[in-house]
Order: sequence, then C-alpha cells, then structure tokens
Amino acid sequence: MTVTDPNWFTEIDAKNGAAWSLQIKEKLHKERTGYQLIEIYATTGFGNLMVIDGFVMLTSRDNFLYHEMMSHPALFTHPDPKRVVIIGGGDCGTLREVLKHPGVESVLQVEIDERVTRLSEQYFPELCESNSDPRAEFYFGDGIQWMKDVEPYGVDLIIVDSTDPIGPAEGLFTEAFYRDCYRALGEHGLIVQQSESPLLHLDSIIKPMHRAMLRAGFDDTATLHFPQPCYPSGWWSATMTGKHDVHIFRQADAEKAAFTTRYYTSAIHQASLAQPNFMLGQ
Amino acid sequence: MTVTDPNWFTEIDAKNGAAWSLQIKEKLHKERTGYQLIEIYATTGFGNLMVIDGFVMLTSRDNFLYHEMMSHPALFTHPDPKRVVIIGGGDCGTLREVLKHPGVESVLQVEIDERVTRLSEQYFPELCESNSDPRAEFYFGDGIQWMKDVEPYGVDLIIVDSTDPIGPAEGLFTEAFYRDCYRALGEHGLIVQQSESPLLHLDSIIKPMHRAMLRAGFDDTATLHFPQPCYPSGWWSATMTGKHDVHIFRQADAEKAAFTTRYYTSAIHQASLAQPNFMLGQ
Repeated sequence: MTVTDPNWFTEIDAKNGAAWSLQIKEKLHKERTGYQLIEIYATTGFGNLMVIDGFVMLTSRDNFLYHEMMSHPALFTHPDPKRVVIIGGGDCGTLREVLKHPGVESVLQVEIDERVTRLSEQYFPELCESNSDPRAEFYFGDGIQWMKDVEPYGVDLIIVDSTDPIGPAEGLFTEAFYRDCYRALGEHGLIVQQSESPLLHLDSIIKPMHRAMLRAGFDDTATLHFPQPCYPSGWWSATMTGKHDVHIFRQADAEKAAFTTRYYTSAIHQASLAQPNFMLGQ
Repeated sequence: MTVTDPNWFTEIDAKNGAAWSLQIKEKLHKERTGYQLIEIYATTGFGNLMVIDGFVMLTSRDNFLYHEMMSHPALFTHPDPKRVVIIGGGDCGTLREVLKHPGVESVLQVEIDERVTRLSEQYFPELCESNSDPRAEFYFGDGIQWMKDVEPYGVDLIIVDSTDPIGPAEGLFTEAFYRDCYRALGEHGLIVQQSESPLLHLDSIIKPMHRAMLRAGFDDTATLHFPQPCYPSGWWSATMTGKHDVHIFRQADAEKAAFTTRYYTSAIHQASLAQPNFMLGQ
C-alpha cells in the first residue's frame, strides 16, 4: 500500500528495499548541469529540499546535524587547525560551520559543480551566510585532481563532504586519494569524510574506508555516529583519519567555544565516538 | 514522484509531511483484534515487519537497537534490579533482553493484546526465545489499571514499551500513571519509557513527559538517544525517571556483562545520555 501522489518526492533504496518520502508544496527548480541533475523542492514539513540525481542531499530542517558533525569534531581534534580544505560541500553548510572557528585562517572549498553553490545561495541562503567571509575561497573543479596537484604539507584538515561513493565521488573513497591527502596534510593533519549508514553500509563502505586510510599511511581512524533523518536509515556516520590519534580532542576548547550550535557539544562529540557492539573489532 | 506499487508498505507522518516505506515480498497475516489492526509482512530487505493500526512496530533487521536501549541502560542504572514489570512489550523483544541479566528474579509482562504476543511467537520467534524462562510471567490486560491495583513498593524497574501516545497508550504518558508507578516502585525504583523522536516530538511529547514525571514525585529524568531506522526520522529516544539520580550507572558491571548485545555497550550507554545542544536547558 503506497500513495500515488505527484506531491511527494521519494528516494528508493532498492538494495535494502526501503524508501523515504517528503511531501512537496512546490517544485522550485530543476536543472541538468554538466555533472548531474539538480532538483529543488519546497516541502510541507522539512523546509527546502535539494535532490541530486534522485538522491536527497539536504533539507532545511535537518541539515544542521550533518554539517555540525562534519566540521566541529575534526576541528576540535586537530590541535590548531588554520588551513582547511573542503572537497565537495557545494551547499556551503559545512563551510559555514568551519568559519565559526576563529582560529581558522583559510577555507578553500573545492566543488566540482558550481551550480550546486549558486542554487544553494538562492534556496538555502542561511547555509551561505558566511560565503563572503574573507577567509573563504571557492574553486570549482575536480577535488581528486586538485589533491594530486597541491603543494605538500600545507593543509591542516581535509573535509570530504561528497555525494555517495558511486559516480563522480567514487574516487574520493580510494587509497590513491587518501595518499594524496596524506601528502597534502601537515604534521597533525587529518581527514573527515562522510561514510554512509552504519546499519546499511558497514561492510560495503565503512570497513573498506578504514582499511584504505590506514594503508595510505595514516595512523588512526575513528567513525563518528549521528542521526540524519533525510539519509537512508536515518543513522549516518563520518570517518576521521589522521597522522596521530583521532580519538582525543580539545575537550576544554569545545566546552568553551564562543559560537552556537544546535546539535554539537563536547559531550555529543565524545558520544559520537562510541561504537555499537556490532562494529567493535572491525 | 512516488511509486505506486502494492508491494510496498508505507507509513505516512502527515504532520511532518514525511513517509517511510518498505518493499514487501508477501503479506503474512492480517487480523483485527479487540484492540487494534495487526498486519505482518515479509519484506525484501528488513526481514519480517509488524504493523499496528498502520504504524510500523518493528522489523527483524533493526529491532535490536530499540529493545537493547529499552532494557540494558535502565537495568544497569538500578543498583540491583530483581523485579521488573514491562507494560506493553507484546513482541517480547524487550523481555528477552531483560532476561539476559542473571540478577533479575522475575519479569511480568503486562500486554493488553495477547494476539501481539501470539503473532510474535509465530513471526518473530527469535524475540520470543526466552518466553519459557521460569522467571517470565505473562498477564494480558490493561497496564494502566494493573498499575493502579498493584501492591506498593514491590517493583524495581518499570519498562513502558508501548505504542505512540495516541489511542490506548495515551494514559501511559500522564502524571496520574507516573504517580501509580511511583507507588509501585521500591527505594531505588525507576521507569524507562519510549519517548518518540527528539527531532519531531521534543515539545509535544518529550518535554511534557519530563515535567509529568517530576510532578509525580520522581527525583531525576534523563532522555537516552539511539538510532531506530524503522521509526519516524530514524532517531528515537527513551526517557528514564527514578527516585534517585538516573545519570549514573553500574559502569563496571556493564563492561563485564556476561551476555551478548549487538548495539549496547557501556560506552554506548554513556553516549546515549549526551544531549543535543537544542535539548539542553529544556
């Protein structure tokens, strides 16, 4: 029993026989760029919705969970992050969170599809409110190539805020890419990367990521857990890897942070590092 | 754009304009009991599915999250739980988890609808594998009335594993019910109760529960967070209240527990107590 109603957007996860739907008030935009099909809708309960190639990217209502967890834990794990690179992240929500850290001196966002950013400026203006910060720089191009070409040792934190590891983002989940990241990163450098659902993608994505990161030369890996209603299963993760221990963080700094968040706190950071029993010993 | 396909079951959350669907292999059972409409399906990706009055109750694949978090945190919070009462819980998954604790001497399950339990024995036999434990007792009747009638001071832990607070379960979310629980509980007694989605039901359910529990005389309340893909938003909670502090627990006992879990660990317990920033100061 399902409703047929053109006023619902549905993302089907065929492999797991599950689907998630949002009720639509209005289709705001549809555009085939050189890279992908982007659709923007106004929903009845989740604010605006961006869909790329049929997959939900974000909604106004719940993106704060993902964007805060893709930024603050890694920023408080590095001892003094000054130079941040975001690979992907075209909606600018992660960028906004990174720029809340006063110690960050520069953030370069390397997004392959400029249209994602332009549409986000139009339909998710709250995520783009820091785009004119003088510390923010935008480069629209291929993140994999950029990482191959960059001068070594100049980056403190790489945030891989990409689509799923199918299609153009596939190369961002490989040992070769992590080796390039390793070379780009300074002494205490680290990566944080979205790593899909612990329930649905443990064997297919999360475990291979850990292995590839360690093979690329990194010293430690840790998967962070958080809720993300608009993604399959509603349970999402980000995986960190670094040249040093990524399980300890600047807890006192996190506790006295002079900016506001809706989800992240120092206690939430610690909590996100707790692994379900079925993931221990992986 | 939604699929019309009779081979999908969809639960619509009209208020939030969201829906979750599972692909169906086969309808296994449909029955209108004296209390509700129960449907059982075999799904393609989530094992068997039980639906009551159109709402997803559980699936074989992901119920371990809910059942472990409805039992182990509260059992390790009480200093020595011997006498446990489950209100609802007809699928017996919570009962199975409770019976893993060797110190528990008796568990009485008070479920209003015996058919839920009988159908669970048939379609979710793994959840019922401890039903013949001599410590388990079944009473099929109204939990609200049972709590009014019970002798005072005889219960260590009350687990309220009910449907949503609409219809028959509504009375389980009231100050009057919590007062009856208070009377039924011994010196270190506590309640743990499913409390819906932190994203969707904070103001409508979670906050009023805390207030009603404290007004009923309890000393402390704490909301536990955990993923639950088959429920709206995929992010769920249980709220504990007790005659003493419910934020501390028998951590050493949890660490050396001689039974297996798939999600729960001592670290997950601690993590589940971390509150999102938007819930602090509530």
